[in-house]
Amino acid sequence: MSFDWVDRGVTARGVSERRFDARRAGRVIPGVLWMPEDPPDAPPPLVLMGHGGSAHKRQDYIVGLGRRLVRHHGFAAVAIDGPVHGDRRADAGTDIEAVNKDFWRTWRDDPAMTDEMVADWRAVLDALQEPGRLGAGPVGWWGLSMGTILGLPVVAAEARVSVAVLGLMGLTGPTRDRLRDDAAAVRCPVLFLVQWDDELFERQRGLDLFSALGADDKRLHANPGGHVQVPFDEFRATEEFLVSHLRVQE
Amino acid sequence: MSFDWVDRGVTARGVSERRFDARRAGRVIPGVLWMPEDPPDAPPPLVLMGHGGSAHKRQDYIVGLGRRLVRHHGFAAVAIDGPVHGDRRADAGTDIEAVNKDFWRTWRDDPAMTDEMVADWRAVLDALQEPGRLGAGPVGWWGLSMGTILGLPVVAAEARVSVAVLGLMGLTGPTRDRLRDDAAAVRCPVLFLVQWDDELFERQRGLDLFSALGADDKRLHANPGGHVQVPFDEFRATEEFLVSHLRVQE
Repeated sequence: MSFDWVDRGVTARGVSERRFDARRAGRVIPGVLWMPEDPPDAPPPLVLMGHGGSAHKRQDYIVGLGRRLVRHHGFAAVAIDGPVHGDRRADAGTDIEAVNKDFWRTWRDDPAMTDEMVADWRAVLDALQEPGRLGAGPVGWWGLSMGTILGLPVVAAEARVSVAVLGLMGLTGPTRDRLRDDAAAVRCPVLFLVQWDDELFERQRGLDLFSALGADDKRLHANPGGHVQVPFDEFRATEEFLVSHLRVQE
Repeated sequence: MSFDWVDRGVTARGVSERRFDARRAGRVIPGVLWMPEDPPDAPPPLVLMGHGGSAHKRQDYIVGLGRRLVRHHGFAAVAIDGPVHGDRRADAGTDIEAVNKDFWRTWRDDPAMTDEMVADWRAVLDALQEPGRLGAGPVGWWGLSMGTILGLPVVAAEARVSVAVLGLMGLTGPTRDRLRDDAAAVRCPVLFLVQWDDELFERQRGLDLFSALGADDKRLHANPGGHVQVPFDEFRATEEFLVSHLRVQE
Protein backbone atom coordinates (compact mmCIF):
# COMPACT_ATOMS: atom_id res chain seq x y z
CA MET A 1 0.00 0.00 0.00
CA SER A 2 1.38 3.38 -0.98
CA PHE A 3 -0.01 6.87 -1.38
CA ASP A 4 1.61 9.54 -3.54
CA TRP A 5 0.60 13.00 -4.59
CA VAL A 6 0.67 13.26 -8.37
CA ASP A 7 0.74 17.05 -8.58
CA ARG A 8 1.43 20.03 -6.34
CA GLY A 9 -2.28 20.87 -6.26
CA VAL A 10 -4.26 23.92 -7.26
CA THR A 11 -5.96 26.30 -4.88
CA ALA A 12 -8.93 28.55 -5.62
CA ARG A 13 -11.22 30.45 -3.26
CA GLY A 14 -9.86 28.71 -0.20
CA VAL A 15 -10.13 25.19 -1.66
CA SER A 16 -7.09 23.08 -2.48
CA GLU A 17 -7.53 20.25 -4.97
CA ARG A 18 -4.81 17.65 -5.31
CA ARG A 19 -4.42 14.48 -7.41
CA PHE A 20 -3.07 11.34 -5.81
CA ASP A 21 -2.38 7.76 -6.74
CA ALA A 22 -2.78 5.13 -4.07
CA ARG A 23 -1.53 1.63 -4.75
CA ARG A 24 -2.85 -1.60 -3.29
CA ALA A 25 -2.47 -5.21 -4.42
CA GLY A 26 -0.91 -4.16 -7.68
CA ARG A 27 -3.76 -1.74 -8.51
CA VAL A 28 -3.33 1.97 -8.99
CA ILE A 29 -6.18 3.93 -7.39
CA PRO A 30 -6.37 7.38 -8.99
CA GLY A 31 -7.98 9.95 -6.74
CA VAL A 32 -8.58 13.61 -6.00
CA LEU A 33 -8.68 15.25 -2.58
CA TRP A 34 -10.34 18.58 -1.88
CA MET A 35 -9.35 20.20 1.38
CA PRO A 36 -9.21 23.60 3.05
CA GLU A 37 -6.34 25.79 1.88
CA ASP A 38 -5.48 26.54 5.50
CA PRO A 39 -4.96 23.32 7.47
CA PRO A 40 -7.71 23.05 10.12
CA ASP A 41 -6.84 22.69 13.80
CA ALA A 42 -8.67 19.37 14.13
CA PRO A 43 -9.13 16.53 11.60
CA PRO A 44 -11.94 17.77 9.34
CA PRO A 45 -15.01 15.70 8.48
CA LEU A 46 -14.30 13.79 5.27
CA VAL A 47 -16.87 12.86 2.62
CA LEU A 48 -16.12 9.93 0.31
CA MET A 49 -17.75 10.62 -3.06
CA GLY A 50 -18.55 7.82 -5.48
CA HIS A 51 -19.12 9.06 -9.03
CA GLY A 52 -21.74 7.77 -11.48
CA GLY A 53 -21.31 5.26 -14.28
CA SER A 54 -19.36 6.30 -17.41
CA ALA A 55 -18.01 9.36 -15.55
CA HIS A 56 -14.93 9.83 -13.37
CA LYS A 57 -13.57 11.32 -10.17
CA ARG A 58 -13.79 14.88 -11.52
CA GLN A 59 -17.36 14.62 -12.81
CA ASP A 60 -18.94 18.10 -12.65
CA TYR A 61 -21.20 17.43 -9.67
CA ILE A 62 -18.41 15.63 -7.80
CA VAL A 63 -16.11 18.62 -8.15
CA GLY A 64 -18.99 20.94 -7.22
CA LEU A 65 -19.95 19.01 -4.12
CA GLY A 66 -16.35 18.57 -3.03
CA ARG A 67 -15.58 22.26 -3.40
CA ARG A 68 -18.75 23.31 -1.60
CA LEU A 69 -18.10 20.96 1.32
CA VAL A 70 -14.66 22.48 1.76
CA ARG A 71 -15.50 26.11 1.15
CA HIS A 72 -18.77 26.40 3.06
CA HIS A 73 -18.24 23.84 5.78
CA GLY A 74 -14.51 23.33 6.27
CA PHE A 75 -14.80 19.64 5.35
CA ALA A 76 -12.50 17.56 3.17
CA ALA A 77 -13.81 15.44 0.28
CA VAL A 78 -12.28 12.71 -1.84
CA ALA A 79 -13.19 10.92 -5.06
CA ILE A 80 -11.52 7.96 -6.76
CA ASP A 81 -12.14 6.55 -10.21
CA GLY A 82 -14.52 3.60 -10.38
CA PRO A 83 -13.51 0.28 -11.92
CA VAL A 84 -12.65 0.62 -15.65
CA HIS A 85 -13.34 4.37 -15.28
CA GLY A 86 -11.25 7.54 -15.59
CA ASP A 87 -7.51 7.24 -15.07
CA ARG A 88 -7.79 3.51 -14.50
CA ARG A 89 -7.99 3.34 -18.31
CA ALA A 90 -5.34 3.95 -20.96
CA ASP A 91 -7.72 6.41 -22.68
CA ALA A 92 -8.41 8.17 -19.33
CA GLY A 93 -12.12 7.51 -19.80
CA THR A 94 -12.60 9.84 -22.72
CA ASP A 95 -14.47 7.21 -24.74
CA ILE A 96 -17.66 7.20 -22.70
CA GLU A 97 -19.36 4.46 -24.68
CA ALA A 98 -16.39 2.17 -24.16
CA VAL A 99 -16.37 2.97 -20.43
CA ASN A 100 -20.04 2.21 -20.15
CA LYS A 101 -19.77 -1.06 -22.05
CA ASP A 102 -16.75 -2.14 -20.02
CA PHE A 103 -18.47 -1.34 -16.76
CA TRP A 104 -21.60 -3.35 -17.49
CA ARG A 105 -19.42 -6.26 -18.60
CA THR A 106 -17.24 -6.03 -15.51
CA TRP A 107 -20.30 -5.76 -13.27
CA ARG A 108 -21.67 -8.94 -14.87
CA ASP A 109 -18.51 -10.98 -15.26
CA ASP A 110 -16.13 -10.02 -12.46
CA PRO A 111 -17.43 -11.24 -9.11
CA ALA A 112 -14.54 -9.49 -7.34
CA MET A 113 -15.39 -6.00 -8.64
CA THR A 114 -17.33 -4.87 -5.56
CA ASP A 115 -14.86 -6.27 -3.03
CA GLU A 116 -11.94 -4.70 -4.88
CA MET A 117 -13.59 -1.28 -4.83
CA VAL A 118 -14.41 -1.62 -1.14
CA ALA A 119 -10.75 -2.47 -0.51
CA ASP A 120 -9.65 0.49 -2.65
CA TRP A 121 -11.80 2.88 -0.64
CA ARG A 122 -10.59 1.48 2.67
CA ALA A 123 -6.97 1.83 1.57
CA VAL A 124 -7.57 5.45 0.55
CA LEU A 125 -9.38 6.19 3.80
CA ASP A 126 -6.55 4.60 5.80
CA ALA A 127 -4.00 6.73 3.96
CA LEU A 128 -5.95 9.99 4.33
CA GLN A 129 -6.55 9.45 8.02
CA GLU A 130 -2.84 9.29 8.76
CA PRO A 131 -1.77 12.13 11.05
CA GLY A 132 0.39 13.86 8.46
CA ARG A 133 -2.57 14.11 6.09
CA LEU A 134 -6.12 14.69 7.38
CA GLY A 135 -6.25 12.68 10.56
CA ALA A 136 -9.26 10.69 11.70
CA GLY A 137 -12.31 12.96 11.65
CA PRO A 138 -15.91 11.83 11.06
CA VAL A 139 -16.57 10.20 7.66
CA GLY A 140 -19.59 10.25 5.35
CA TRP A 141 -20.47 8.63 2.03
CA TRP A 142 -22.08 10.31 -0.99
CA GLY A 143 -22.78 8.22 -4.09
CA LEU A 144 -25.69 7.83 -6.47
CA SER A 145 -26.27 5.24 -9.19
CA MET A 146 -22.88 3.51 -9.67
CA GLY A 147 -21.93 5.43 -6.53
CA THR A 148 -24.50 3.26 -4.75
CA ILE A 149 -23.71 0.03 -6.59
CA LEU A 150 -20.14 0.33 -5.31
CA GLY A 151 -20.77 2.59 -2.31
CA LEU A 152 -23.52 0.78 -0.43
CA PRO A 153 -20.99 -2.07 0.12
CA VAL A 154 -18.48 0.48 1.44
CA VAL A 155 -21.05 1.89 3.86
CA ALA A 156 -21.99 -1.61 4.99
CA ALA A 157 -18.37 -2.73 5.46
CA GLU A 158 -16.81 0.38 6.93
CA ALA A 159 -17.69 1.29 10.51
CA ARG A 160 -15.95 4.64 10.11
CA VAL A 161 -18.71 5.79 7.73
CA SER A 162 -21.32 7.36 9.99
CA VAL A 163 -23.79 8.82 7.45
CA ALA A 164 -24.60 8.13 3.80
CA VAL A 165 -26.35 9.58 0.78
CA LEU A 166 -27.37 6.80 -1.60
CA GLY A 167 -29.88 6.24 -4.39
CA LEU A 168 -30.70 6.22 -8.11
CA MET A 169 -30.23 2.47 -7.83
CA GLY A 170 -32.33 -0.51 -6.84
CA LEU A 171 -32.34 -4.17 -5.99
CA THR A 172 -31.40 -5.05 -9.53
CA GLY A 173 -28.43 -5.91 -11.72
CA PRO A 174 -25.75 -8.59 -11.39
CA THR A 175 -24.97 -7.75 -7.73
CA ARG A 176 -28.54 -7.41 -6.47
CA ASP A 177 -28.15 -10.18 -3.90
CA ARG A 178 -24.99 -8.55 -2.57
CA LEU A 179 -26.78 -5.20 -2.44
CA ARG A 180 -29.67 -6.72 -0.49
CA ASP A 181 -27.32 -8.23 2.08
CA ASP A 182 -25.26 -5.08 2.37
CA ALA A 183 -28.36 -2.90 2.67
CA ALA A 184 -29.50 -4.96 5.64
CA ALA A 185 -26.13 -4.36 7.30
CA VAL A 186 -26.29 -0.54 7.04
CA ARG A 187 -26.79 1.06 10.44
CA CYS A 188 -25.88 4.71 9.92
CA PRO A 189 -28.39 7.42 8.92
CA VAL A 190 -29.17 7.34 5.19
CA LEU A 191 -30.77 9.77 2.76
CA PHE A 192 -31.89 7.75 -0.26
CA LEU A 193 -32.86 9.39 -3.57
CA VAL A 194 -35.30 8.01 -6.12
CA GLN A 195 -36.11 9.48 -9.51
CA TRP A 196 -39.78 8.73 -10.06
CA ASP A 197 -39.39 8.15 -13.80
CA ASP A 198 -35.95 6.52 -13.72
CA GLU A 199 -35.48 4.86 -17.10
CA LEU A 200 -32.31 3.01 -16.05
CA PHE A 201 -33.25 1.41 -12.74
CA GLU A 202 -36.95 0.74 -12.25
CA ARG A 203 -38.69 2.78 -9.56
CA GLN A 204 -40.03 -0.23 -7.67
CA ARG A 205 -36.54 -1.73 -7.41
CA GLY A 206 -35.33 1.53 -5.87
CA LEU A 207 -38.16 1.49 -3.34
CA ASP A 208 -37.24 -2.13 -2.58
CA LEU A 209 -33.63 -1.15 -1.91
CA PHE A 210 -34.76 1.62 0.43
CA SER A 211 -36.97 -0.91 2.23
CA ALA A 212 -34.00 -3.26 2.56
CA LEU A 213 -31.80 -0.70 4.34
CA GLY A 214 -31.26 -1.80 7.91
CA ALA A 215 -30.82 1.71 9.28
CA ASP A 216 -33.42 2.94 11.76
CA ASP A 217 -32.77 6.50 10.63
CA LYS A 218 -33.37 6.47 6.91
CA ARG A 219 -35.41 8.71 4.65
CA LEU A 220 -36.41 8.61 1.02
CA HIS A 221 -36.66 11.68 -1.20
CA ALA A 222 -38.26 11.16 -4.59
CA ASN A 223 -38.54 13.62 -7.45
CA PRO A 224 -40.17 13.41 -10.87
CA GLY A 225 -37.94 12.93 -13.88
CA GLY A 226 -35.40 10.53 -15.31
CA HIS A 227 -32.19 9.04 -13.97
CA VAL A 228 -30.01 12.12 -14.42
CA GLN A 229 -32.67 14.73 -13.62
CA VAL A 230 -32.19 15.09 -9.87
CA PRO A 231 -33.30 18.67 -9.09
CA PHE A 232 -30.71 21.16 -7.99
CA ASP A 233 -32.28 21.72 -4.59
CA GLU A 234 -32.25 17.99 -3.93
CA PHE A 235 -28.50 17.98 -4.47
CA ARG A 236 -28.34 20.77 -1.93
CA ALA A 237 -30.47 18.71 0.46
CA THR A 238 -27.94 15.86 0.24
CA GLU A 239 -25.17 18.27 1.13
CA GLU A 240 -27.11 19.64 4.10
CA PHE A 241 -27.89 16.10 5.25
CA LEU A 242 -24.20 15.20 5.32
CA VAL A 243 -23.22 18.45 6.97
CA SER A 244 -25.86 18.18 9.68
CA HIS A 245 -24.55 14.72 10.64
CA LEU A 246 -20.81 15.29 10.24
CA ARG A 247 -20.38 18.80 11.53
CA VAL A 248 -18.16 18.72 14.56
CA GLN A 249 -20.06 20.16 17.51
CA GLU A 250 -18.56 23.43 18.64
CA MET B 1 -71.52 34.72 4.96
CA SER B 2 -70.34 36.26 8.21
CA PHE B 3 -67.14 36.28 10.23
CA ASP B 4 -67.01 37.01 13.94
CA TRP B 5 -64.27 36.90 16.52
CA VAL B 6 -65.36 34.69 19.40
CA ASP B 7 -62.81 35.96 21.92
CA ARG B 8 -60.45 38.87 22.37
CA GLY B 9 -57.48 36.64 21.69
CA VAL B 10 -54.39 35.70 23.66
CA THR B 11 -50.87 36.81 22.89
CA ALA B 12 -47.65 35.06 23.88
CA ARG B 13 -44.11 35.59 22.63
CA GLY B 14 -45.21 37.83 19.79
CA VAL B 15 -47.97 35.49 18.57
CA SER B 16 -51.65 36.36 18.82
CA GLU B 17 -54.15 33.51 18.71
CA ARG B 18 -57.82 34.30 18.20
CA ARG B 19 -60.96 32.16 17.85
CA PHE B 20 -63.51 32.98 15.19
CA ASP B 21 -66.75 31.60 13.84
CA ALA B 22 -67.45 32.04 10.18
CA ARG B 23 -70.95 31.26 8.89
CA ARG B 24 -71.88 30.08 5.43
CA ALA B 25 -75.02 28.39 4.10
CA GLY B 26 -76.33 27.86 7.59
CA ARG B 27 -73.08 26.19 8.79
CA VAL B 28 -70.93 27.52 11.56
CA ILE B 29 -67.22 27.19 10.74
CA PRO B 30 -65.19 27.29 13.97
CA GLY B 31 -61.65 28.47 13.44
CA VAL B 32 -58.46 29.80 14.99
CA LEU B 33 -56.15 32.42 13.51
CA TRP B 34 -52.52 32.85 14.54
CA MET B 35 -50.97 36.15 13.55
CA PRO B 36 -48.14 38.47 14.50
CA GLU B 37 -48.82 40.55 17.62
CA ASP B 38 -47.68 43.65 15.77
CA PRO B 39 -49.62 44.07 12.52
CA PRO B 40 -47.21 43.71 9.58
CA ASP B 41 -46.82 46.45 6.99
CA ALA B 42 -47.88 44.21 4.10
CA PRO B 43 -50.38 41.32 4.02
CA PRO B 44 -48.46 38.39 5.51
CA PRO B 45 -48.23 34.97 3.87
CA LEU B 46 -51.05 32.80 5.20
CA VAL B 47 -50.93 29.04 5.72
CA LEU B 48 -54.20 27.10 5.79
CA MET B 49 -53.76 24.13 8.12
CA GLY B 50 -56.00 21.07 7.86
CA HIS B 51 -55.89 18.91 10.98
CA GLY B 52 -55.92 15.10 11.09
CA GLY B 53 -58.84 12.77 11.69
CA SER B 54 -60.36 12.58 15.19
CA ALA B 55 -58.49 15.76 16.19
CA HIS B 56 -59.43 19.44 15.91
CA LYS B 57 -58.22 22.91 14.97
CA ARG B 58 -56.03 23.18 18.07
CA GLN B 59 -54.36 19.76 17.70
CA ASP B 60 -50.86 20.00 19.22
CA TYR B 61 -48.93 20.03 15.96
CA ILE B 62 -51.35 22.48 14.39
CA VAL B 63 -50.85 24.95 17.25
CA GLY B 64 -47.10 24.33 17.10
CA LEU B 65 -46.83 24.88 13.36
CA GLY B 66 -49.08 27.92 13.46
CA ARG B 67 -47.12 29.56 16.26
CA ARG B 68 -43.77 28.82 14.62
CA LEU B 69 -44.87 30.24 11.28
CA VAL B 70 -45.86 33.46 13.00
CA ARG B 71 -42.99 33.77 15.43
CA HIS B 72 -40.09 32.77 13.19
CA HIS B 73 -41.34 33.92 9.82
CA GLY B 74 -43.92 36.66 10.34
CA PHE B 75 -46.61 34.58 8.62
CA ALA B 76 -50.24 34.11 9.62
CA ALA B 77 -51.81 30.66 9.95
CA VAL B 78 -55.38 29.45 10.27
CA ALA B 79 -57.11 26.19 11.16
CA ILE B 80 -60.78 25.26 11.07
CA ASP B 81 -62.49 22.20 12.49
CA GLY B 82 -63.10 19.38 10.02
CA PRO B 83 -66.56 17.93 9.38
CA VAL B 84 -68.06 16.36 12.52
CA HIS B 85 -64.89 17.44 14.39
CA GLY B 86 -64.12 19.87 17.22
CA ASP B 87 -66.53 22.68 17.86
CA ARG B 88 -68.80 21.50 15.06
CA ARG B 89 -70.00 18.93 17.62
CA ALA B 90 -72.12 19.36 20.71
CA ASP B 91 -69.43 17.51 22.72
CA ALA B 92 -66.68 19.73 21.21
CA GLY B 93 -64.92 16.60 19.96
CA THR B 94 -63.92 15.29 23.33
CA ASP B 95 -65.24 11.80 22.55
CA ILE B 96 -62.52 10.83 20.07
CA GLU B 97 -64.02 7.44 19.26
CA ALA B 98 -67.33 9.02 18.40
CA VAL B 99 -65.60 11.63 16.23
CA ASN B 100 -63.68 8.96 14.39
CA LYS B 101 -66.75 6.82 13.81
CA ASP B 102 -68.79 9.81 12.65
CA PHE B 103 -66.08 10.90 10.26
CA TRP B 104 -65.71 7.54 8.55
CA ARG B 105 -69.51 7.34 8.21
CA THR B 106 -69.75 10.86 6.84
CA TRP B 107 -66.89 10.20 4.42
CA ARG B 108 -68.75 7.13 3.17
CA ASP B 109 -72.33 8.38 3.19
CA ASP B 110 -72.27 12.12 2.54
CA PRO B 111 -71.22 12.85 -1.05
CA ALA B 112 -71.27 16.60 -0.29
CA MET B 113 -68.70 16.42 2.52
CA THR B 114 -65.68 17.38 0.41
CA ASP B 115 -67.41 20.19 -1.47
CA GLU B 116 -68.77 21.65 1.73
CA MET B 117 -65.30 21.73 3.31
CA VAL B 118 -63.83 23.32 0.20
CA ALA B 119 -66.53 25.96 0.37
CA ASP B 120 -65.87 26.48 4.10
CA TRP B 121 -62.18 27.05 3.46
CA ARG B 122 -62.86 29.45 0.59
CA ALA B 123 -65.27 31.43 2.75
CA VAL B 124 -62.71 31.66 5.55
CA LEU B 125 -59.98 32.67 3.10
CA ASP B 126 -62.24 35.33 1.59
CA ALA B 127 -62.97 36.73 5.04
CA LEU B 128 -59.34 36.75 6.17
CA GLN B 129 -58.14 38.42 3.00
CA GLU B 130 -60.40 41.41 3.55
CA PRO B 131 -58.33 44.59 4.02
CA GLY B 132 -59.35 45.13 7.64
CA ARG B 133 -58.05 41.66 8.54
CA LEU B 134 -54.95 40.19 6.86
CA GLY B 135 -55.26 41.35 3.28
CA ALA B 136 -54.36 39.24 0.28
CA GLY B 137 -50.85 37.85 0.76
CA PRO B 138 -49.54 34.57 -0.66
CA VAL B 139 -51.35 31.43 0.54
CA GLY B 140 -50.15 27.90 1.27
CA TRP B 141 -51.78 24.65 2.37
CA TRP B 142 -50.56 22.25 5.06
CA GLY B 143 -52.58 19.11 5.75
CA LEU B 144 -51.75 15.44 6.29
CA SER B 145 -54.05 12.43 6.45
CA MET B 146 -57.58 13.91 6.79
CA GLY B 147 -55.85 17.20 6.05
CA THR B 148 -55.14 15.73 2.60
CA ILE B 149 -58.50 14.00 2.16
CA LEU B 150 -60.15 17.40 2.56
CA GLY B 151 -57.21 19.61 1.61
CA LEU B 152 -56.12 18.21 -1.72
CA PRO B 153 -59.54 19.32 -3.08
CA VAL B 154 -58.94 22.79 -1.63
CA VAL B 155 -55.53 23.00 -3.31
CA ALA B 156 -57.02 21.80 -6.60
CA ALA B 157 -59.95 24.23 -6.47
CA GLU B 158 -58.30 27.34 -5.12
CA ALA B 159 -55.95 29.25 -7.39
CA ARG B 160 -54.85 31.41 -4.46
CA VAL B 161 -53.06 28.42 -2.92
CA SER B 162 -49.56 28.52 -4.40
CA VAL B 163 -47.79 25.75 -2.46
CA ALA B 164 -48.93 22.68 -0.53
CA VAL B 165 -47.78 20.10 1.98
CA LEU B 166 -49.84 16.92 1.64
CA GLY B 167 -49.53 13.24 2.48
CA LEU B 168 -50.20 10.36 4.87
CA MET B 169 -53.04 9.51 2.50
CA GLY B 170 -53.46 7.62 -0.73
CA LEU B 171 -55.75 6.83 -3.62
CA THR B 172 -58.09 4.98 -1.33
CA GLY B 173 -61.30 5.42 0.64
CA PRO B 174 -64.78 6.54 -0.40
CA THR B 175 -63.52 9.66 -2.25
CA ARG B 176 -60.59 8.04 -4.08
CA ASP B 177 -61.96 8.93 -7.52
CA ARG B 178 -62.40 12.54 -6.45
CA LEU B 179 -58.87 12.56 -5.04
CA ARG B 180 -57.46 11.19 -8.30
CA ASP B 181 -59.20 13.91 -10.33
CA ASP B 182 -58.21 16.66 -7.92
CA ALA B 183 -54.61 15.43 -7.77
CA ALA B 184 -54.36 15.74 -11.54
CA ALA B 185 -55.57 19.36 -11.27
CA VAL B 186 -52.88 20.43 -8.78
CA ARG B 187 -50.34 22.75 -10.39
CA CYS B 188 -48.55 24.35 -7.44
CA PRO B 189 -45.37 22.93 -5.84
CA VAL B 190 -46.12 20.05 -3.47
CA LEU B 191 -44.19 18.29 -0.72
CA PHE B 192 -45.85 14.91 -0.18
CA LEU B 193 -45.16 12.77 2.90
CA VAL B 194 -45.38 8.99 3.09
CA GLN B 195 -44.93 6.84 6.17
CA TRP B 196 -43.27 3.66 4.93
CA ASP B 197 -45.14 1.41 7.37
CA ASP B 198 -48.45 3.30 7.40
CA GLU B 199 -51.01 0.96 8.93
CA LEU B 200 -53.98 3.17 8.07
CA PHE B 201 -53.43 3.98 4.40
CA GLU B 202 -51.39 1.45 2.44
CA ARG B 203 -47.96 2.63 1.22
CA GLN B 204 -48.62 1.80 -2.43
CA ARG B 205 -51.82 3.88 -2.42
CA GLY B 206 -49.81 6.83 -1.11
CA LEU B 207 -47.22 6.41 -3.86
CA ASP B 208 -50.09 6.25 -6.36
CA LEU B 209 -51.50 9.52 -5.08
CA PHE B 210 -48.08 11.16 -5.39
CA SER B 211 -47.87 9.84 -8.96
CA ALA B 212 -51.30 11.28 -9.71
CA LEU B 213 -50.35 14.82 -8.69
CA GLY B 214 -50.32 17.05 -11.77
CA ALA B 215 -47.69 19.43 -10.44
CA ASP B 216 -44.38 19.58 -12.28
CA ASP B 217 -42.67 20.60 -9.05
CA LYS B 218 -43.49 17.86 -6.58
CA ARG B 219 -41.36 15.83 -4.23
CA LEU B 220 -41.95 12.85 -1.99
CA HIS B 221 -40.37 12.39 1.43
CA ALA B 222 -40.79 8.98 3.01
CA ASN B 223 -39.81 7.87 6.49
CA PRO B 224 -40.02 4.55 8.29
CA GLY B 225 -42.75 4.07 10.85
CA GLY B 226 -46.50 4.12 11.20
CA HIS B 227 -49.16 6.67 10.35
CA VAL B 228 -48.55 9.00 13.26
CA GLN B 229 -44.77 8.57 13.47
CA VAL B 230 -43.60 11.35 11.16
CA PRO B 231 -40.15 12.33 12.49
CA PHE B 232 -39.71 15.71 14.06
CA ASP B 233 -37.22 16.92 11.47
CA GLU B 234 -39.64 16.02 8.69
CA PHE B 235 -42.21 18.31 10.28
CA ARG B 236 -39.54 20.98 10.24
CA ALA B 237 -38.86 20.24 6.57
CA THR B 238 -42.53 20.86 5.76
CA GLU B 239 -42.33 24.20 7.50
CA GLU B 240 -39.18 25.17 5.60
CA PHE B 241 -40.77 24.08 2.34
CA LEU B 242 -43.73 26.40 2.89
CA VAL B 243 -41.55 29.25 4.05
CA SER B 244 -39.19 28.98 1.08
CA HIS B 245 -42.13 29.27 -1.31
CA LEU B 246 -44.25 31.85 0.50
CA ARG B 247 -41.65 34.18 1.91
CA VAL B 248 -42.14 37.60 0.39
CA GLN B 249 -38.95 38.57 -1.43
CA GLU B 250 -37.29 41.50 0.26
